[in-house]
Amino acid sequence: MALTSRVEQILSWYASENPGTLTNLVRLLNHGALAGTGKMVILPVDQGFEHGPVRSFAPNPEAYDPDYHFQLAIDAGCNAYAAPLGSLQAGAARFAGQVPLILKLNNSDTLAKVEQPLSAVTGSVDDALRLGCVGVGYTIYPGSGARNRMYEDLREIALEARRKGLVVIVWSYPRGAGLSKQGETAVDVCAYAATIAAQLGAHVIKVKPPTAHVEQEEARKMYEKFGIPIQTLAERVRHVVQATFNGKRVVIFSGGESKAADAVLEEVREMAAGGSFGSIMGRNAFQRPRAEALKLLADVIHIYRSGR
Amino acid sequence: MALTSRVEQILSWYASENPGTLTNLVRLLNHGALAGTGKMVILPVDQGFEHGPVRSFAPNPEAYDPDYHFQLAIDAGCNAYAAPLGSLQAGAARFAGQVPLILKLNNSDTLAKVEQPLSAVTGSVDDALRLGCVGVGYTIYPGSGARNRMYEDLREIALEARRKGLVVIVWSYPRGAGLSKQGETAVDVCAYAATIAAQLGAHVIKVKPPTAHVEQEEARKMYEKFGIPIQTLAERVRHVVQATFNGKRVVIFSGGESKAADAVLEEVREMAAGGSFGSIMGRNAFQRPRAEALKLLADVIHIYRSGR
Amino acid sequence: MALTSRVEQILSWYASENPGTLTNLVRLLNHGALAGTGKMVILPVDQGFEHGPVRSFAPNPEAYDPDYHFQLAIDAGCNAYAAPLGSLQAGAARFAGQVPLILKLNNSDTLAKVEQPLSAVTGSVDDALRLGCVGVGYTIYPGSGARNRMYEDLREIALEARRKGLVVIVWSYPRGAGLSKQGETAVDVCAYAATIAAQLGAHVIKVKPPTAHVEQEEARKMYEKFGIPIQTLAERVRHVVQATFNGKRVVIFSGGESKAADAVLEEVREMAAGGSFGSIMGRNAFQRPRAEALKLLADVIHIYRSGR
Amino acid sequence: MALTSRVEQILSWYASENPGTLTNLVRLLNHGALAGTGKMVILPVDQGFEHGPVRSFAPNPEAYDPDYHFQLAIDAGCNAYAAPLGSLQAGAARFAGQVPLILKLNNSDTLAKVEQPLSAVTGSVDDALRLGCVGVGYTIYPGSGARNRMYEDLREIALEARRKGLVVIVWSYPRGAGLSKQGETAVDVCAYAATIAAQLGAHVIKVKPPTAHVEQEEARKMYEKFGIPIQTLAERVRHVVQATFNGKRVVIFSGGESKAADAVLEEVREMAAGGSFGSIMGRNAFQRPRAEALKLLADVIHIYRSGR
Amino acid sequence: MALTSRVEQILSWYASENPGTLTNLVRLLNHGALAGTGKMVILPVDQGFEHGPVRSFAPNPEAYDPDYHFQLAIDAGCNAYAAPLGSLQAGAARFAGQVPLILKLNNSDTLAKVEQPLSAVTGSVDDALRLGCVGVGYTIYPGSGARNRMYEDLREIALEARRKGLVVIVWSYPRGAGLSKQGETAVDVCAYAATIAAQLGAHVIKVKPPTAHVEQEEARKMYEKFGIPIQTLAERVRHVVQATFNGKRVVIFSGGESKAADAVLEEVREMAAGGSFGSIMGRNAFQRPRAEALKLLADVIHIYRSGR
Repeated sequence: MALTSRVEQILSWYASENPGTLTNLVRLLNHGALAGTGKMVILPVDQGFEHGPVRSFAPNPEAYDPDYHFQLAIDAGCNAYAAPLGSLQAGAARFAGQVPLILKLNNSDTLAKVEQPLSAVTGSVDDALRLGCVGVGYTIYPGSGARNRMYEDLREIALEARRKGLVVIVWSYPRGAGLSKQGETAVDVCAYAATIAAQLGAHVIKVKPPTAHVEQEEARKMYEKFGIPIQTLAERVRHVVQATFNGKRVVIFSGGESKAADAVLEEVREMAAGGSFGSIMGRNAFQRPRAEALKLLADVIHIYRSGR
Repeated sequence: MALTSRVEQILSWYASENPGTLTNLVRLLNHGALAGTGKMVILPVDQGFEHGPVRSFAPNPEAYDPDYHFQLAIDAGCNAYAAPLGSLQAGAARFAGQVPLILKLNNSDTLAKVEQPLSAVTGSVDDALRLGCVGVGYTIYPGSGARNRMYEDLREIALEARRKGLVVIVWSYPRGAGLSKQGETAVDVCAYAATIAAQLGAHVIKVKPPTAHVEQEEARKMYEKFGIPIQTLAERVRHVVQATFNGKRVVIFSGGESKAADAVLEEVREMAAGGSFGSIMGRNAFQRPRAEALKLLADVIHIYRSGR
Repeated sequence: MALTSRVEQILSWYASENPGTLTNLVRLLNHGALAGTGKMVILPVDQGFEHGPVRSFAPNPEAYDPDYHFQLAIDAGCNAYAAPLGSLQAGAARFAGQVPLILKLNNSDTLAKVEQPLSAVTGSVDDALRLGCVGVGYTIYPGSGARNRMYEDLREIALEARRKGLVVIVWSYPRGAGLSKQGETAVDVCAYAATIAAQLGAHVIKVKPPTAHVEQEEARKMYEKFGIPIQTLAERVRHVVQATFNGKRVVIFSGGESKAADAVLEEVREMAAGGSFGSIMGRNAFQRPRAEALKLLADVIHIYRSGR
Repeated sequence: MALTSRVEQILSWYASENPGTLTNLVRLLNHGALAGTGKMVILPVDQGFEHGPVRSFAPNPEAYDPDYHFQLAIDAGCNAYAAPLGSLQAGAARFAGQVPLILKLNNSDTLAKVEQPLSAVTGSVDDALRLGCVGVGYTIYPGSGARNRMYEDLREIALEARRKGLVVIVWSYPRGAGLSKQGETAVDVCAYAATIAAQLGAHVIKVKPPTAHVEQEEARKMYEKFGIPIQTLAERVRHVVQATFNGKRVVIFSGGESKAADAVLEEVREMAAGGSFGSIMGRNAFQRPRAEALKLLADVIHIYRSGR
Repeated sequence: MALTSRVEQILSWYASENPGTLTNLVRLLNHGALAGTGKMVILPVDQGFEHGPVRSFAPNPEAYDPDYHFQLAIDAGCNAYAAPLGSLQAGAARFAGQVPLILKLNNSDTLAKVEQPLSAVTGSVDDALRLGCVGVGYTIYPGSGARNRMYEDLREIALEARRKGLVVIVWSYPRGAGLSKQGETAVDVCAYAATIAAQLGAHVIKVKPPTAHVEQEEARKMYEKFGIPIQTLAERVRHVVQATFNGKRVVIFSGGESKAADAVLEEVREMAAGGSFGSIMGRNAFQRPRAEALKLLADVIHIYRSGR
């Protein structure tokens, strides 16, 4: 498949990467229903680990089965399926080559009380390679007192990944003692978190949809002084995209908790209008019955294709 | 020995593993009185380390001798014998090739006060190889503040083990500041612990028999909302098995403290009815006189063969 | 380009380095408008990471784009452009060979509360090599309780860098529980910080302009006893240069917050008079409109060329 | 020298070791006045490090000289001489091949206040090899909050030592926040400590003579329930030997502080009667004038040869 | 130059070292005005790092220049010049082969508040090799809660250094929570510190001149019980030398703060009378004008040659 001009443009931002990484970036951009558009919808399923099995899969018990998610991502035409080590190992051989895979390299659970938010590194770049993945995923918590540990582990992982031709996707989720609860999704913090991920060498960056709250006093002064519009979600997404190397890094937004399909689509429409490169949608996909999930994902994909 | 269709089915869930690991998984499944059934009974003896010698072996002093346990596992037709480094080193040469061995790689004792439950890593994958083991065992304590350390050590061990063709067995025993005492065996926690072990890449998962207690409020809502049956042990075991990749990982249950043979067998019957893949039974085996232990293990094996 | 006698003199201070490092030191000294003078002006842009995107780039939104800074450094005739991993990766291929690059290897952000000031190591010497850099930059915080960690990481980085022929630039910024706020820029502390950087093996040292405050009682006694002049900025800069191996290491001074062009130039004039080897100027450059920035940098360069 | 049947029996317990380690075990068992008996007396001198020079050597100033101890061990017919790195380096060349050497790999001193008892690792397996040692010694403190660090360091050391054909001797000295002062030599704790050392892979285990105190409530129940005799030192030693793999590991007992020769011999007689494999005797040997020390060691050896 | 019998005797104490290390030990003993006497005077200059530049060099501003110290050591006929990484790098090429160099591998500064005294490791054995050094220097603080870290880092450094043929010089300076201020130079503590350094594998040991204070109660009993003379400095030095392997390790003494030449010489005379192997003299040398320093060093050397 020849590259579209949009994909060629995106690749031009990653010109310092080796051909191995560029190849896998193309695999990601050119797979599924959004192939060639420069947009992407990814199915991530790490909730079994992060929230526990019953909270994650009781609404749709078929989803206890790791194979279910591979098939859902394939049938929905997602660009990729992202999951922790165990899940990918369970289906990687059976579904080999049918959908780009992203190995989520770190994970947390809700059983332990930990002082500083910090996920455990549960997989490795070599695991990703032996499972045939196009990339690795890693979560950072800017705002955590364990920030340095996370950034430094990511440095090692990202260096190894790009040497071995993989794409690096960073989930940048601010939290920790440095931030208020509201501040975790504040527009200034979200933009800052995206910048940090970009500076740490992420190829693709996943953040949460930013709210209109502003957390840092010195940032507030700037928004006011320069009249930067942050009233609508579209405006805020545009700001985050600009803050991420002036739009020269692929930034996608997560979907959050399960909600009504209309609410999901309305949010996606706003984000698409703001220049989002796509969505990464877990619970809203796999906690619905399969038919509903396929319908919703098709609608989301339609918005990204058509812009509305 | 040709593979039974059940063993072939089980192997199909591990299709991303290399032939070395599959070979050792077959050795585990095809040894002893339950060979070919897809069920397993394992003899684990780490109590000398975990509880001290007199608490462990005074009831049956022959058991002070490491050779005793090798012979017991062989004569009882167990699928494997699992023990720490010292115990395996003591008998591995004499009993070479007579019973599959699992090297327990981490251990705790009751002499020290430690802030966060965390076992010491007392053996290595290379120790397992030089002793002729089919696999390695590793204990995690989900709920401990030292969770990350354990998960990350396991990541390294599991990656090395599967590269070198070994099976990875994870003891997943929730405990620590994040959990109430009752919560350590709560059904939701037990299911969560099994999921975590599976996501960390375990081939075989050992958990404790779950009680009807539910620890996490958000899990409770799910059990109620979706009417998930957790009244009987069989139901709870079924739930745990489902939570572990929808039954696509071998989950076995431990036997706990010594108790009357009838009580042991009743519990095993319930667990077998719930779809347990087998039992791992230490104190109930080695703290009995040898003849009684052989009888009890024979009865347990019978239940797993016959389903009652 | 033949070496000037001043560059030859500077090189003579680094005679224990291998030819690879000397080559890159020459590249740094012989590039741009100050080539051959032994003076240098460097454009550093790590504020996106250190202060967040909106605080850094809202005043001049073109600066959100990583390419902007490469072009600014080239057009202004700077000796080098220094930035974190992500920024350099974004433009290193497009601007390959047009301006010497310095990879800033560690970074901090303002989102987390950390007990002891300590930047995360976010890049590696191998990253610098694959991106075509002439050197690496590293920040130490003398006065921090995490001092040892920083000095020891730098030891490893500096050893690897000089083996691989790179120049080592150290940002030496005193801060931490051992110092008062005022003490962070005290003349004695600044001189001490420059000495530490030199002893740790830095080839080029960046400090802040020293104030007339003296922090350590035992240092104050010395200034008084020996009548060392520290009233004017020029005198203090001269003292710092002397303290840094008697002027046998390249010491440059940072520009600090954005301020009026006149104030910038006045400060630079004082520092040049005191024997500064140059300036490293970030916010005063990239937060101005491009034309103004080019003008200011030209004026700064003029001062270093002409001495006034 | 042909092996005696007793030495052959002992070797049979170590059948999983490689010939290199077996060779060094034979060197240990077949050297000196107790050669071939399966008993051993070892001279350990680490008190210079552990208690300081004046406390250790003032009573017999010749003992300040490292050569003194080599000669004492040789002349007394000890099976081996054990000491820290510096001591062995001082004499290893001069006395090469005259007495089996054991390099004590970790040490503590009394100058520092440390929160958790934890010795520093002051030597390495490679040091032992270059000095011609037959084995390495390592102290663990079961009961310390730093337990995991010690067990894990020992794991690495023991794995490397056995790969390189050395014998591993573990000093197992319970202490730390988990134990009362009295509990450090309690019979249950001593037996537990010996078990732990055996499980960690020790070939030879050194413990202190156990007292009749019982520290752990659950152990006490067992002693009472099963009527295990622990009244005399001989009985307690027998219990410890049984607890250590049913007598299939070489367990030796330390001598403690300097005391009258009669008291030393009486204690040794009890321990020999209980089945001790020998004694490791430092201060009682080197703090006496040389002639007295030789006499005492000869008497101890006589007891182990004759059984009384 | 043929070896003198005294140097041959000293070498005999180091007979387990490889020829590379012996060669460098001879280079140290056979250089300068004390060549062949078995005595040594070393010029150490790490005060720029340890105390800051102005406190160190304001009294004699020529000393800001790293070259100054090389030349001073050469002209004074010192056995060696010891300094941190930066200082040696500055002059190692220019003065190559003119004076034996010792790279000081760890350093502290006075800017930070640290809980436990612990120097940062600022150089490596490979740095020492590339700079042409005969040995490496390392400071330990017995009495510090960070003792284990220091001893273990030294273990690695010393093992690597002796493999690569270097001499290991240990500065043993007791301090930390385990000691009173007075106790840092107490005679028992000083003797203990010298023993520890010897046991850790030091070839040359540097301690402070011991005072008559006794810190540890159990040591005091010994001094009294055995009537060990510790009234004069000569007696105390003799005790320290005895405590250091009965005089079979080279022990040298530091000079401390700047003081009048007479006081320096008086102290040196006492130490020489007590059997000191020499002096390591920094501030008393480089803080004097060059001519005075040369005179003082000549006088010190004369004392060590003539014994008075």
